[in-house]
Amino acid sequence: MINLDNNADSPLYMQIYEQIKQEIINGVLPEGSRLPSTRHLSQTLAVGRNTVENAYLQLSSEGYVTSRVGSGFIVQNLNGLTYLTNEDKCNKPIKSSRPESKPSIVYPHNFQFGLLSAQNFPLNIWRKISSRALSSLTAEDLTTYCDKKGELELRYNLSEYLLKSRGVSCSANQIILCAGLEYALSLLCQLLRNKTTQIALEEPGYIGARNIFTNNGFQLLPVHIENDGLKISELENASAKVVYVTPSHQFPNGIVTSIQKRLLLLDWAKRNDGLIIEDDYDSELRYNSRPIPSIISIAGNENVVYIGTFSKALSPSLRVSYMVLPQKLLDLYHKEFGMYQTPVSLLEQRVIQELISSGYWENHLRKTCVAYKKKHDLLIHLISETMGRIVKIHGKNAGLHILLESSQGLTEREMIERAKEHGVLVHPVSTFWLNPENYSNNMVLLGFGNLSETDIVEGIKKLAQAWKA
Amino acid sequence: MINLDNNADSPLYMQIYEQIKQEIINGVLPEGSRLPSTRHLSQTLAVGRNTVENAYLQLSSEGYVTSRVGSGFIVQNLNGLTYLTNEDKCNKPIKSSRPESKPSIVYPHNFQFGLLSAQNFPLNIWRKISSRALSSLTAEDLTTYCDKKGELELRYNLSEYLLKSRGVSCSANQIILCAGLEYALSLLCQLLRNKTTQIALEEPGYIGARNIFTNNGFQLLPVHIENDGLKISELENASAKVVYVTPSHQFPNGIVTSIQKRLLLLDWAKRNDGLIIEDDYDSELRYNSRPIPSIISIAGNENVVYIGTFSKALSPSLRVSYMVLPQKLLDLYHKEFGMYQTPVSLLEQRVIQELISSGYWENHLRKTCVAYKKKHDLLIHLISETMGRIVKIHGKNAGLHILLESSQGLTEREMIERAKEHGVLVHPVSTFWLNPENYSNNMVLLGFGNLSETDIVEGIKKLAQAWKA
Repeated sequence: MINLDNNADSPLYMQIYEQIKQEIINGVLPEGSRLPSTRHLSQTLAVGRNTVENAYLQLSSEGYVTSRVGSGFIVQNLNGLTYLTNEDKCNKPIKSSRPESKPSIVYPHNFQFGLLSAQNFPLNIWRKISSRALSSLTAEDLTTYCDKKGELELRYNLSEYLLKSRGVSCSANQIILCAGLEYALSLLCQLLRNKTTQIALEEPGYIGARNIFTNNGFQLLPVHIENDGLKISELENASAKVVYVTPSHQFPNGIVTSIQKRLLLLDWAKRNDGLIIEDDYDSELRYNSRPIPSIISIAGNENVVYIGTFSKALSPSLRVSYMVLPQKLLDLYHKEFGMYQTPVSLLEQRVIQELISSGYWENHLRKTCVAYKKKHDLLIHLISETMGRIVKIHGKNAGLHILLESSQGLTEREMIERAKEHGVLVHPVSTFWLNPENYSNNMVLLGFGNLSETDIVEGIKKLAQAWKA
Repeated sequence: MINLDNNADSPLYMQIYEQIKQEIINGVLPEGSRLPSTRHLSQTLAVGRNTVENAYLQLSSEGYVTSRVGSGFIVQNLNGLTYLTNEDKCNKPIKSSRPESKPSIVYPHNFQFGLLSAQNFPLNIWRKISSRALSSLTAEDLTTYCDKKGELELRYNLSEYLLKSRGVSCSANQIILCAGLEYALSLLCQLLRNKTTQIALEEPGYIGARNIFTNNGFQLLPVHIENDGLKISELENASAKVVYVTPSHQFPNGIVTSIQKRLLLLDWAKRNDGLIIEDDYDSELRYNSRPIPSIISIAGNENVVYIGTFSKALSPSLRVSYMVLPQKLLDLYHKEFGMYQTPVSLLEQRVIQELISSGYWENHLRKTCVAYKKKHDLLIHLISETMGRIVKIHGKNAGLHILLESSQGLTEREMIERAKEHGVLVHPVSTFWLNPENYSNNMVLLGFGNLSETDIVEGIKKLAQAWKA
């Protein structure tokens, strides 16, 4: 028995479809039974024959009935009926999802790392360039897939920028646009799977990278950091084929890998058919010298994969990074990954391209370095002045964070807890150790990217009070 | 001997740095030798002491020299000098990279699949919404990382849309924003690695997906497609834990998985603690019935991962897709992947959110279906009329492609070659078979997404001539 409601939201054919479907599910219309002919049902219900046909078509598309020429629409066998009778239970909308994040205590002074200064963002220029990029995109652009590695023009501009600023001499062909480090490293793991599933990395090191390698099934081989970079003897003993490093400003220690270590690393790679993954995440931000030459710039690019990003010096919410592949990996990429579509939207690609080719990007880098240098110098000055005897500073002159080591025997935990009591949040270094038992356990991490000068002054004052107490 | 050129592009301190660096590399300044004091050199060169200091600082940052209190700057040992003397060779700019794509023969009529109609793209609305999103973004938005799974508001709107249009009842919490299928499936492979590294998939099936699974180290278990979907008996025998399917419009065959098969699939998953990856890539595009209910909508979401995209019905160059994870995988995601940043730019997220919440998205879907239906119906009509006796049509009424099977004994290759002779490009199906020996070898694929009605009329006319000849 089908009831139609002309005033319902649902069109008539859907009402017919729904009710017959329910009758099939409930067994009122058992397997093998025949639906009334469309002509007959349309007369019974006083609707157009078309309406009934549409309902039957939908039932038939979904497989509840089949139509055979001459024999009409026949109800099909439904195994697993239980799922369907549970439908009501399953299909409730789930709306209770808004509060996702847990409330946490807010400290007046938070030296959070990994954050940028909003004041440094070139909002007007970015808006202007984005608007222009927006107008430049046609319906044709937007309804076709982009160049799979990223637009050639953008990669060409990137190759010019990399040569000029980082000494990287590569062709546009070698550059693959990525959407952040997760994308780049996951892709690399896929590329390297047949070579190795072991990866040597810095101890302590960037936990995000470690995480990605583990999630891709790679075994981690931690190699300790010393004053001028990786302990090469440990690397030699680790029998790894691939090493992941942050040589320009090691995370978290802030160490700059010396030219000796760079050469030793390259030599290691050459002798072992090894690969160096050079994550140059914040190399643009240096305050007392020019950016340190990249490893890849020393040796051409036979044994080095170079990774750069726009997240640190411009904006992490654009989600644009890139990777330079050496020829061997590039060949493999073209062969096995040539179908992968770029993860970066065409609009963002045009914006970055325009930023670089117009010269705004280098201009922005200059300005941003000056602005961060001011904060950095203030921070270092204040720490030296108020806490010079109780802490040692590591990793200065670059990036957006420093490390403080207690000279008075405080543990990391004590440093953090005492700071909290004075309303200041500083951050553990132990997290970045794979085997924290080797860690001296007397350092904390301070980010300053998003702090104002007043924040820095106030925060360091409190911190000095906390640790001197 | 240092020569300075006041008219050079390079600043004075860089000239000093470069020349000392070269002397170290060339062995003119051997290991252990001391650089002149900054005061002395600044007098010799008649430059400010600051200039010399900057040069020394750079040399020291890069590790060519070290400074020790009281003993000045000492040249360090350089192992692997060979790299540095090769520098000139390595650092040539590589500019010969422009022509990447090979020239290929252009056919007047190309039934390319996977392309969209530029006419259907809502350019004005998209520009308006994008401009608005652009103005809404603040410098703070742009200098912080976005919500890791995608902005909550967008995921909330997506969950509402999914419930309404695809019967998927999930919370925003379960949705992960992705940048295309490569990102989504690679992430899934990472999530599933500890459960299995085998994946059952449709034979024939989408080559892109197969490719991603292989690249992630998964073993492929092909399961044949029959008239109403996957051969469940083969799936049972394959001893897989995970199956990847395109049930709404199977690629390439265009088959709609019947409700029986959907239930059998769910039953298989329940009995085997299995997982169904439901790729619902073009489910919005249906021409003779409403979209087919998703598998996930039948069974809640315990054993189903649902993947949707904006690439087919809106734009592939936005690079926005999404994944709905069942609770068990979601827990794992939060635990092991909680640090992954979203790959989608904040701007695109705002655009998609505004599209959905303003109602434009559903409006666009309605219009786009009408427009594609017109082309689709014309195509089917013309083929039936001119070639009804020599080909059989598969996979009509949905998506942007159909299959044609030769009824006159032509092989795939013959169909393609004869078409080419008449200036028409149709596409092989054999590519989509993992084991092509099981393929009847008498079908071709025709896409119509980006063709005009004139293109379709002309193309089909030529095709009929080609195959009738």
